[in-house]
Amino acid sequence: MSVIDEVLKANQEYAKNFKLGHLPMPPANKLAVVTCMDARMTVSQLLGLKTGEAHIIRNAGGIVTEDALRSLIISHHLLGTQEFMIINHTDCGMLTFKDEELRKKLQKTTGTAAVAPMHFHAFSSLEENVHEQIQKVKSHPWVPKHIPVRGFIYDVKTGRLNEVSL
Amino acid sequence: MSVIDEVLKANQEYAKNFKLGHLPMPPANKLAVVTCMDARMTVSQLLGLKTGEAHIIRNAGGIVTEDALRSLIISHHLLGTQEFMIINHTDCGMLTFKDEELRKKLQKTTGTAAVAPMHFHAFSSLEENVHEQIQKVKSHPWVPKHIPVRGFIYDVKTGRLNEVSL
Repeated sequence: MSVIDEVLKANQEYAKNFKLGHLPMPPANKLAVVTCMDARMTVSQLLGLKTGEAHIIRNAGGIVTEDALRSLIISHHLLGTQEFMIINHTDCGMLTFKDEELRKKLQKTTGTAAVAPMHFHAFSSLEENVHEQIQKVKSHPWVPKHIPVRGFIYDVKTGRLNEVSL
Repeated sequence: MSVIDEVLKANQEYAKNFKLGHLPMPPANKLAVVTCMDARMTVSQLLGLKTGEAHIIRNAGGIVTEDALRSLIISHHLLGTQEFMIINHTDCGMLTFKDEELRKKLQKTTGTAAVAPMHFHAFSSLEENVHEQIQKVKSHPWVPKHIPVRGFIYDVKTGRLNEVSL
């Protein structure tokens, strides 16, 4: 059986006991989180969030790309979130390569140069990367100045979040 | 107390009982999921996924943007995932506006026209939107043809996933 078919079976069980059909669209805790897609982060658990409480935006690295900014802007302006968290993590795959290496490898493996994605956003320092992402959010003209934007590094060995001081 | 401070307290409790520090970087189930940031979807629960099993990529709408493609390409080529799921959901915020309306509203509210994001990716048909996202993944030259790319609509009233047939 494919993994997707297994997951669909698990969803049938989930739906049998589902009691959350009444939740409204806006997040109850008015929180939006940008973090990595990494499999070792079960975001709801490590932040103690229940269904309906927060927007969770995830991509490779927990990077504030144009797409993450799009999501944050929609989150605040249409759905009322008032605090933003950015979470990177230790042992991130994005620390293990350089953009140009990966681009060359993909062109060689597939025989095709792609137009997009233009950047992979690999990085070499976690702290510096978190700083940069915070600045990208704070400097965007459509993100109001009163919104707290705080950055963290999640330690995949200990399960603990450590704040990156500005 | 700010919501972020509450979440940090919850994380301290999570870390006290943390026993997953040994998990490897590559997802155990070789699965990558692209879905919406919506607060009503606790992805690990509704798919029955445990910590360490799958990459979860999330943005406003569950759109296969350039950034989601970047994440999927990294997920497959660097971390070995072999199946992709795309999940949109009923009552999505992206069904409630038009890109041009939101752009005008933001320019008026903030007094500034922003360069990015260029698109908000609002849509009017869930099924059509899922179809489009599948096609964007399947047609990318860096996504191998043997990878299954299946699309679903999650029903926020029932907790059930329904497959979008191609």
